[in-house]
Amino acid sequence: METVDIDGLRASVVKQGGIVRQLKKDGASQEEVTKAVKVLQELKAKLEEEVKKQEPEDTFDKATFDDVLLRKMFVVPSFEIYGGVAGLYDFGPVTCALKANFINLWKQHFILEEDMLEVECTNLTPYCALKTSGHVDKFTDLMVKDSKTGECYRADKLLEAKMDQLLKDITLSKEQRLELEHIRIQADSYTPDQLDELFAKYGVVALATGNPLTHPFPFNLMFSTQIGPEGNLQGFLRPETAQGMFMNYRRLMDYNGRKFPFAAAQVGTGFRNEISPRAGLLRVREFPMAEIEHFCNPNDKRHPKFAKVAHLVLPLFSREHQQGDGKLLTLTMGEAVKEGVVNNETLGYFMARTYLFLLRVGIAPEKMRFRQHLLTEMAHYASDCWDCEIKLSYGWTECVGIADRACFDLKKHSEATKVEMTASVAHEVPIEKKVLAATFNNRAIGVAFKKEQAVVKAYLKTLGEEDLEACQKLIDAMAANGSAEVGPLDNGKTYTITPDLVSYKPAVLKIHEEKFIPSVVEPSFGVGRLIYSILEHSFYVREGEEKRTVMAFKPAVAAIKCSIMPINNSEQFNPTVEKIGEALRYYALAFKTDASSASIGRRYARTDEIGVPFAITVDFETLNEKSELFNTVTLRERDSMKQIRIPIAELASTLNDVVKERKTWEELLAQYPQVDVKEE
Amino acid sequence: METVDIDGLRASVVKQGGIVRQLKKDGASQEEVTKAVKVLQELKAKLEEEVKKQEPEDTFDKATFDDVLLRKMFVVPSFEIYGGVAGLYDFGPVTCALKANFINLWKQHFILEEDMLEVECTNLTPYCALKTSGHVDKFTDLMVKDSKTGECYRADKLLEAKMDQLLKDITLSKEQRLELEHIRIQADSYTPDQLDELFAKYGVVALATGNPLTHPFPFNLMFSTQIGPEGNLQGFLRPETAQGMFMNYRRLMDYNGRKFPFAAAQVGTGFRNEISPRAGLLRVREFPMAEIEHFCNPNDKRHPKFAKVAHLVLPLFSREHQQGDGKLLTLTMGEAVKEGVVNNETLGYFMARTYLFLLRVGIAPEKMRFRQHLLTEMAHYASDCWDCEIKLSYGWTECVGIADRACFDLKKHSEATKVEMTASVAHEVPIEKKVLAATFNNRAIGVAFKKEQAVVKAYLKTLGEEDLEACQKLIDAMAANGSAEVGPLDNGKTYTITPDLVSYKPAVLKIHEEKFIPSVVEPSFGVGRLIYSILEHSFYVREGEEKRTVMAFKPAVAAIKCSIMPINNSEQFNPTVEKIGEALRYYALAFKTDASSASIGRRYARTDEIGVPFAITVDFETLNEKSELFNTVTLRERDSMKQIRIPIAELASTLNDVVKERKTWEELLAQYPQVDVKEE
Repeated sequence: METVDIDGLRASVVKQGGIVRQLKKDGASQEEVTKAVKVLQELKAKLEEEVKKQEPEDTFDKATFDDVLLRKMFVVPSFEIYGGVAGLYDFGPVTCALKANFINLWKQHFILEEDMLEVECTNLTPYCALKTSGHVDKFTDLMVKDSKTGECYRADKLLEAKMDQLLKDITLSKEQRLELEHIRIQADSYTPDQLDELFAKYGVVALATGNPLTHPFPFNLMFSTQIGPEGNLQGFLRPETAQGMFMNYRRLMDYNGRKFPFAAAQVGTGFRNEISPRAGLLRVREFPMAEIEHFCNPNDKRHPKFAKVAHLVLPLFSREHQQGDGKLLTLTMGEAVKEGVVNNETLGYFMARTYLFLLRVGIAPEKMRFRQHLLTEMAHYASDCWDCEIKLSYGWTECVGIADRACFDLKKHSEATKVEMTASVAHEVPIEKKVLAATFNNRAIGVAFKKEQAVVKAYLKTLGEEDLEACQKLIDAMAANGSAEVGPLDNGKTYTITPDLVSYKPAVLKIHEEKFIPSVVEPSFGVGRLIYSILEHSFYVREGEEKRTVMAFKPAVAAIKCSIMPINNSEQFNPTVEKIGEALRYYALAFKTDASSASIGRRYARTDEIGVPFAITVDFETLNEKSELFNTVTLRERDSMKQIRIPIAELASTLNDVVKERKTWEELLAQYPQVDVKEE
Repeated sequence: METVDIDGLRASVVKQGGIVRQLKKDGASQEEVTKAVKVLQELKAKLEEEVKKQEPEDTFDKATFDDVLLRKMFVVPSFEIYGGVAGLYDFGPVTCALKANFINLWKQHFILEEDMLEVECTNLTPYCALKTSGHVDKFTDLMVKDSKTGECYRADKLLEAKMDQLLKDITLSKEQRLELEHIRIQADSYTPDQLDELFAKYGVVALATGNPLTHPFPFNLMFSTQIGPEGNLQGFLRPETAQGMFMNYRRLMDYNGRKFPFAAAQVGTGFRNEISPRAGLLRVREFPMAEIEHFCNPNDKRHPKFAKVAHLVLPLFSREHQQGDGKLLTLTMGEAVKEGVVNNETLGYFMARTYLFLLRVGIAPEKMRFRQHLLTEMAHYASDCWDCEIKLSYGWTECVGIADRACFDLKKHSEATKVEMTASVAHEVPIEKKVLAATFNNRAIGVAFKKEQAVVKAYLKTLGEEDLEACQKLIDAMAANGSAEVGPLDNGKTYTITPDLVSYKPAVLKIHEEKFIPSVVEPSFGVGRLIYSILEHSFYVREGEEKRTVMAFKPAVAAIKCSIMPINNSEQFNPTVEKIGEALRYYALAFKTDASSASIGRRYARTDEIGVPFAITVDFETLNEKSELFNTVTLRERDSMKQIRIPIAELASTLNDVVKERKTWEELLAQYPQVDVKEE
């Protein structure tokens, strides 16, 4: 297929637009103008067509999807009978089970696989912990109010919405487009003054009224409460689960036998008092999340299992490309770390493991990218940070953040509590270090410095071990002048050192143990958003006599693994249905029996709607002792609608293998005779 | 064994005490007094001995238990490095896994078994919902303050503590004892004035200082917060998960195809701003819970599966016996419902299912009782309520509440929101009802009542169907006086009815459908307390060369199902250890490998401490192709410390069967050769 030069077409549109304007300005004849406008319209139409061709239209039917979510009780507004509360949603039966399966897989994929230490900490968090972590001062969004009605808006979201609106103009030049996209991407990292300027430049006003907005000001997103009856202990609902793991760092390290590195993990709820939660299920005020804190040596961020993922090619959207051509990298993770695109192996390892996990639970690979934080977005202490973004009907949405937070949190909490939060690793082969070893004349030093001799000796010893250059200067100064000043030391004093007190000679120090405040690599999963992403990516409409909606949940996460349907509601099928149910229960496979009098087609449609991957049909052949098909049933797969005939004796264990990801439907198709059935 | 009459002994002690006092008062000789005192002391010693004999001493070693909880990170104070926050605790790795297994079993036992509809609602709850439910006004505890320091106490807990202190006096008469026990049991149902009186009578003062206390006043236990940036929407953290299910009642009923009865279930967090959380892990400020709302016909509370549990004898502690002899009933559940001790089948069914569940997860049966609420304790709308109490080192503790809440919640929310919350059941065989059917003279009625004729006709018709007695009175009055007054009706008016307007005749009405606001039977599980109960009931100390602590977790709930230990840390064992690990992973059985150089005995002790039920040892025989024991390993059970020799090929599936409760260790002992091993 020939690719059309869209950029060239755009340039033609812009050029022709200029011609039309010039003609009008010059007072050209009606005919001339009409002709030029016609050319412009043709060019625009062609451009539009080509843009559509290259970005295939998304067939996602949001209205039907939203209807199914409500009608089948996947997700419903909380406190609906009281009119609801913005940003709060409840999960119904199917989503509850889906979420439980998701969490189980997450625990298998991360906690069990890496032997992580799981903890469960409280939602209530006292002021002191969140003051130290920086949340009391900095966990804010910039808010603006409608200057007349006082309605509150999140400033960055208004800016993003404006950019989205402007970006719809297909006649933008490549440069204009990049500029707007760039502003959109870093909408949440502008200062209030920068926002004011951008609002003025692009004409951002209150959405509901068109009124001007106030100057942006920070609003803290934590829910505040009082702990205890006295009312003097302020607390918050945790904005993330991470802090609980930092609190427990020392106990966790002890539990782990002081071995290093190690990781803690937590699945729980996070809370954010969103300013104006307009984006439905994505911007909510409480949400399930799952976080990992991997504690490692800041001087050695290799990962022992990195080789296992080095070959993977992830959709990396690096800082440079976001500000450049907007394209994804096509490096393997091994190359990405080697070339410094991804800061270190541990970070890269978790990015790759995250990618594999998301594929496993059913996120569409073509709607996933890892976007690196721009330098302006990243916390000052962080070494590197990548968001896994998922493309939804709301646009690209951050669903997982994977950050190297260095030693920031442990250091801060250690300073605030005076509790040491360090680790040490023993070197199997001691590291050899060239030093200048100090030899002291203890008697003379004692006379010279009396009670302060220990301080001075410690300083001189450390100088020779840690700062060879400065130590050599001291030696040289003493040799040249007969004495030298050192200090001021920690006690604020300065001392005069003479060659009779100390002498240095080159030596090799063997270092057996290294002590450090660990660096933390933190993969943080927005479980609520991921569940929503699975719902969107799984949803499709099957065209037929009537529209039927399907949820293509993967068997591993599907709430209900299969349905059992007798061909009609006659009682003769009951014993067989019971027997199959018992076998499924043996493997703890959730199932539903539908022995209603509805047609098989209608019953299939019902299970498709809630994402049941398999349907078992018990028919007359099943019961017919004289038939070759005696004691076999049909097994129908939801998406292909293909059916096989399988012996009841092999049914449950086979389904268990598929659910446990040990077998695929394709393998079953090859193994068992296919039945030719036309639904409806 | 002869039983001694303790009550008689008590009476003798009291009597002899009186004699001693009288002698002293009468100025008897020193010799006489000494003699009488000696008799008193002997009687007291004998009484003490007998009391001890009949209530065998609890060997629970609380200090060691608490030490293990912290050291092995079962449960640790939250925000410990900041000094902790009273009433907040974190779970470490073992308890997290234990809890996850507990919840999975709970879901299997209740949700899957009964096809309940699971939901997940938010913790944040707006004022309106909790105002209607009564929590804003009544979810309070009575609080008293130290009149000098202002320290806060929960009034009922102070009274309970006082009663416990007084009950330690073994010389109390039976009546005195019963009185104190009675006060203790209903400590939380006294009014402020009654408490004041009891405090004065028994000398209750501030625990820490001995200062007098203020008058008791109600303190609301909900954590309050503001939802949204405007600060005008007050919210609370939910005190229970139940309300979320009532909110979703209509959607749930629709989801269930309007079939009836049905149940909703929710697992989540509850919050209570406890006044003075002193009882360690039991009185906490946030806690996991699991609740069921079973919606049923108020006129038909039979349960289809009741027959399955009717034979069970639960430890029932009825209202009557609490106020009488303090003994447990020995009725089957079938008898208990029949005799009206337990209000109805549905309530009884859930009590029995709860009992079975608690046995399944490892609660000691002799430390469990179902205590019926006293009439003074029970909410006015409730029909019956039983708490499952578990005996812990803190005393008998409410861990599950099973209440018949009638239609209270749905009715209240329906009134507040004007949303209809009803259900209807169709009668397969229509119910026949004797009525007085009204026949109207429409023309005459039209003339008599004009626009109000519909109101009057509806009243007269309903009268004949719903209140035969009143209807007959009307007929008689018309016959006697030629007319009769009816009303005032709903519109406030009174009407004169004459025989020419309406006539009645006996008829039979067939009722095909019944409409009602459902009754709710609510089993509510305090998951945190149950987890703690499992920890206490599982804990014991094994005497040997050194004290070793064990957690006797049942295989089904144990965090780690088995450990794999090569007999020493030589590398030759690695492939076999790997192979076994893979087989265990196939069945998703959590395991730990301990290939350290510590002795096998020490390694067993380590796994005992965290409650691993089985240990697999790979030894030289395992690898020895010439041995009969080639490819077999030893399997050690934690509590019996017995070992069997089992082929590797059968190991994982056998362990899986034990964990899934399909096989017992005793069956394995019978099946496989036992190995004679003496640990240390």
